[in-house]
Amino acid sequence: MPEPTTLPSQTRDSVLVCLTHQEPREYRIVVQAGLLQRVGEECVQILEPNSKILILTDSNLEAKYLPLVQKSLESAGFLVSSCVVPAGEESKSLAVAQKVFEAALKANLSRKDTILGLGGGVIGDLAGFCASTWHRGMNLIHVPTTLVAQVDSAIGGKTAVNFGQVKNMVGTFYQPRAVLADPETLQTLPPRELSAGLAEVVKYGLIETSCTGESGFFNWLFEHSGNLKAVFSQMIHRCACIKASVVMQDETETRGLRHFLNLGHTFGHAYESLSEYGILHGEAVAIGLEQATRLSVHLGVFPQSAYEQLAPLLSRLGLAESLKRQTSYPPDALLVAMRQDKKNLGNHIRLILPEQAPGRVVVRTDVPDSLILQVLGGQ
Amino acid sequence: MPEPTTLPSQTRDSVLVCLTHQEPREYRIVVQAGLLQRVGEECVQILEPNSKILILTDSNLEAKYLPLVQKSLESAGFLVSSCVVPAGEESKSLAVAQKVFEAALKANLSRKDTILGLGGGVIGDLAGFCASTWHRGMNLIHVPTTLVAQVDSAIGGKTAVNFGQVKNMVGTFYQPRAVLADPETLQTLPPRELSAGLAEVVKYGLIETSCTGESGFFNWLFEHSGNLKAVFSQMIHRCACIKASVVMQDETETRGLRHFLNLGHTFGHAYESLSEYGILHGEAVAIGLEQATRLSVHLGVFPQSAYEQLAPLLSRLGLAESLKRQTSYPPDALLVAMRQDKKNLGNHIRLILPEQAPGRVVVRTDVPDSLILQVLGGQ
Repeated sequence: MPEPTTLPSQTRDSVLVCLTHQEPREYRIVVQAGLLQRVGEECVQILEPNSKILILTDSNLEAKYLPLVQKSLESAGFLVSSCVVPAGEESKSLAVAQKVFEAALKANLSRKDTILGLGGGVIGDLAGFCASTWHRGMNLIHVPTTLVAQVDSAIGGKTAVNFGQVKNMVGTFYQPRAVLADPETLQTLPPRELSAGLAEVVKYGLIETSCTGESGFFNWLFEHSGNLKAVFSQMIHRCACIKASVVMQDETETRGLRHFLNLGHTFGHAYESLSEYGILHGEAVAIGLEQATRLSVHLGVFPQSAYEQLAPLLSRLGLAESLKRQTSYPPDALLVAMRQDKKNLGNHIRLILPEQAPGRVVVRTDVPDSLILQVLGGQ
Repeated sequence: MPEPTTLPSQTRDSVLVCLTHQEPREYRIVVQAGLLQRVGEECVQILEPNSKILILTDSNLEAKYLPLVQKSLESAGFLVSSCVVPAGEESKSLAVAQKVFEAALKANLSRKDTILGLGGGVIGDLAGFCASTWHRGMNLIHVPTTLVAQVDSAIGGKTAVNFGQVKNMVGTFYQPRAVLADPETLQTLPPRELSAGLAEVVKYGLIETSCTGESGFFNWLFEHSGNLKAVFSQMIHRCACIKASVVMQDETETRGLRHFLNLGHTFGHAYESLSEYGILHGEAVAIGLEQATRLSVHLGVFPQSAYEQLAPLLSRLGLAESLKRQTSYPPDALLVAMRQDKKNLGNHIRLILPEQAPGRVVVRTDVPDSLILQVLGGQ
C-alpha cells in the first residue's frame, strides 16, 4: 500500500480532518409595510421555482394571516401546505416538533423545499428547529409578526424547543434564507405585547455603539417616542441592523459580543422567574434596563442626565406599570434568582452595564452584592 | 437618526446578513490498538479539564466496554455519567433521543461538557444528534466499536434519528471533537457483522483515486485478504483518510463529491428494501459493488481483469453467500426499488460506476433500464 500521505498532516495512527466554510452565507432581512401580501414575490427570488413550502403558524394567526400568505405563495407558483400549532409557549416542545415533522413527511418535503414560520418567537424558534433538522437542514424563511420576533428572535439563527421546564434547551444555530418583516402586523398587536417588544427596542438604543460603532438611536427613539407607530419601519430596520451586526461578528456565541444583547436580562430573568412568568419577558427587560442603568450611575460610569431620560422613555412606550413592579419582590430572593442565570461565570454575577453614554455597554463581574441589592430594592 | 450605514450593503428596507466561518474546525481520527483503555488520556488533550462527560452506549456493550471507558475517563479527572439505550436500530428515534436529553438534564450538562458515543452506527448517530442540539451544540466524541462505524459512520459529521419509518430523516451536520477508534474491538465482532463492514472497506478501494488522487488500496486489500485481521489498523486508517478527504471537500453534501461514497448503494438499497432489511446494509453493498462493477464491464468502461478480482476478494472477506443472494428477487421489482432511491434526479437512476481502474468512479444517469435489469438478473 502506498503511504497514506494524501493529507499533509496525517500520521501513522491519526488522520486530521480540517473543515472550512468556503462560501459565505448571506441572507436579507426585508422590512416593508404590506410585505405579507407580497411574500410570494420575495420567495420567488430566493427559492427554487415550484418547490414546496410548509407554512408553520399558530391557532391565533391561522384565520388572520394564513390565507393571505398561502395565496401569495401559491400565486408565485409554490406548492403550499400548512401546519397549525396551538398558540403559546407550550408549543415550543419536542412533542409539537414531532407534529411538524409529521406534516413535513406528509408533504414529502425534501432538502430543497422550505419551512416558512409565520408568527412570533415561539413559531420562529420551532420552525427553525424543524427546518434545521429535517433531512439535516432544509430552507427556512421567517415571517415574524410580533415586534420581538421582528427585531430580535427571527434574526441570528438561534432555534430551539424547551425541554424539562428549561427554556431553549434543545436547538441549533441555523440561519434562515430570508427574514420578511411586515410592520403592519404590529398595528393589531395587543398593546401590552407591543410595549414589551419596545423594551427590547430601547435595549438596542443602549447597546448600539458597542455593537456597531454608530450612535444616535437612543436619542432618535426619545424624540419619536410620542408617536413611534409612525416610524415603525425605520425603527425595526435599525434594530435589525444592530442585531445583524452582532450576529455577523459572533454567530455562535463564542466571542462574547453576543453578550451585549443581554443588557437588562440578568435582572429581568430574576423578575420573570419570581413572577412565575406572569411578567412578560419584555416587561422584565424594561425593569432590567432601568436597574442596570441606575447601577451604572451608582458606579459613576454613566451620566445621571442620560439615566433621567430612560424612565420617561419607557413610560411613554407603555412600560410605566412594569417599572413600578420592580419593588414587588424581596431583593434577597431576586439576587438568588440572578445567581442562577446560566450566563454567569462560576459564582460571579455577570452584568452588562451601560457606560459613558447611551449606546455603550461593558461587561462587569465585580459588582458587590450590596449594590445589586440596593438597586433591586428600587434605590 | 443617523443613516443606518454601518453595514455596507444595507438599503433603506433591507439588511444584509453575511456569515463566514473564520476559524477552520479541526479534529483527529485516532486509530490505535488498545485505545479504549486510554480514552481518558486522549480526551484530556481535547476537552476542558474536570468537565462532565456523558457516555452513551447500548445494552450489548454496557458490560463489555462501559466500565473500562468510564474508569479511564474518571482517572483522567472527568466527571462521568452514562446512558444505556437498547441495542438496535429502534434506538435511533426521537423517543430515545428524549431519554438521552433526560440524562443530559440530570447530569446538568453545559455547552462545555461532552457526550461520548461508545458503540456502532446507531449509537454514533444518536449521540451526534443529541450533542448537536443540547444547548445548541456541545462537545461530541465518537468511540466507534464496529467496523462500519470506524471506517464510515463516525467520520464526517452526519447525525440522525429515523422518523416515520424513514431512515435518517431528522438530523444535523455536526462534527465531533475527535474520533477514537480501537481496532481491537473488532476482534470480538460477530463474523457476519465484520464481513458486512468489509464490504464498505472494499468500496473505499474502488473509489480511492476519485476521492484522494491516490491509488493502490484495492490491490493492497486483495494482497492482504487472506489475513486482514493482521493489518486492521492500517486498513482502518486508510479508509478514514479516504472518508476524511471526501468530507473535507464536501462537508454538507452540496458539491457532489460525497456521492462517490454511494458506490454500490443504489443497487444495495433495493436489496435491503426487498429483503425487508433481512440483508445487512454491508451485505447489500457487497452485491451492489459486484453489480456496479459488472455493469461497468458491460459498458466497456472497466477492465474485465480487474472485475475478476472483485468477487474472489469479496468471497475471501466472507461475502460469498451474500453475493449469491443477488438473484433471489425479480429484477423488475429491484428496478422499481432502485427508482425510489432519494439520490435519483427525477426519473433517471443515478449510478456511481467504477471506471478505468479500481479506485476511479464516475456518476452516470444514462444507463438504459435493459442493461440494469440484465445486471440485476445476475448476467
